[in-house]
Amino acid sequence: MFMLESVSSTVKKVKSQAANILTLVNLSLGSLALLFIFKGSLTAGFVFIVLAALFDRFDGMVARKLQIESEFGKQLDSLCDLISFGIAPAFLLYQTALSDFGIPGMLFTIIYIACGAIRLARFNITEFTGAFVGVPITVAGCILAVGYLLVPVIPSFVFMFITILLSFLMISTLSIQKR
Amino acid sequence: MFMLESVSSTVKKVKSQAANILTLVNLSLGSLALLFIFKGSLTAGFVFIVLAALFDRFDGMVARKLQIESEFGKQLDSLCDLISFGIAPAFLLYQTALSDFGIPGMLFTIIYIACGAIRLARFNITEFTGAFVGVPITVAGCILAVGYLLVPVIPSFVFMFITILLSFLMISTLSIQKR
Repeated sequence: MFMLESVSSTVKKVKSQAANILTLVNLSLGSLALLFIFKGSLTAGFVFIVLAALFDRFDGMVARKLQIESEFGKQLDSLCDLISFGIAPAFLLYQTALSDFGIPGMLFTIIYIACGAIRLARFNITEFTGAFVGVPITVAGCILAVGYLLVPVIPSFVFMFITILLSFLMISTLSIQKR
Repeated sequence: MFMLESVSSTVKKVKSQAANILTLVNLSLGSLALLFIFKGSLTAGFVFIVLAALFDRFDGMVARKLQIESEFGKQLDSLCDLISFGIAPAFLLYQTALSDFGIPGMLFTIIYIACGAIRLARFNITEFTGAFVGVPITVAGCILAVGYLLVPVIPSFVFMFITILLSFLMISTLSIQKR
């Protein structure tokens, strides 16, 4: 009887933390992406960013389905997004294209990360009403990551343009309906 | 007259955003640290983390002095701290000591970043009452960065121990008075 109660209490705890566990999986995948990009395994880095994007879809869905949405979960999600869709794709593209441009390449990488952080900070203090203000960092990060696949066929300077365009779209007041 | 008004309005705007501008300088220094660590310039990476730590002291002081503390500023500060004192020092130590240990070295790096994110998410939803709960990520990040200077004299496995200890201290309920 005691054992049954203990198991039931553990199941309840895991259920209440299910969305946060998925968010931490997203963070781990983003950090793994960055570690592999560091080691020069760029395709592995790309794959981990794509996996992080899949888990990012899940955590919000699970939180809503199990009705366990929390302010802590929202904060953790934003911090994870900064790694998986801010820093990791920015460094993936820096390694493959932007590093050709020296200091401007570094500057554009930093501007992308800074605009991602501004977008997330603004999102965290805004009540969500069904439409995003500015392009979400998840979308911008996935576009940058897909850009990696196009590096052999598109000139490097185009990626400088894409990086700065996505940076400004993130902090713009463009309204995007959530699907 | 019109010009004077325009200048006065610009000064007001800059003043209201002064703390956030300093926070973005902190983020840029953290990102620069990571870029240099990426390129193998580890000492430059260490210097940029130290500079980020100095700017991190300033932004809070400026916000309080000018009475421009904001929820947006708090959010932005946490996102910047994750880069400058979470990811950057973790990768600095990974490159110099933890990479010797293969998968466990990668795992400990990810655990440190995850614990840093949990600490920041918890801090963001808590009313600050003069004492920190858990070691702040700024303190943990500076200890890791200083560890880089000791790599030539301390065996690598000690850094595995320090990394995991700091990870758990960040998410612990240890109470630390702010100085």
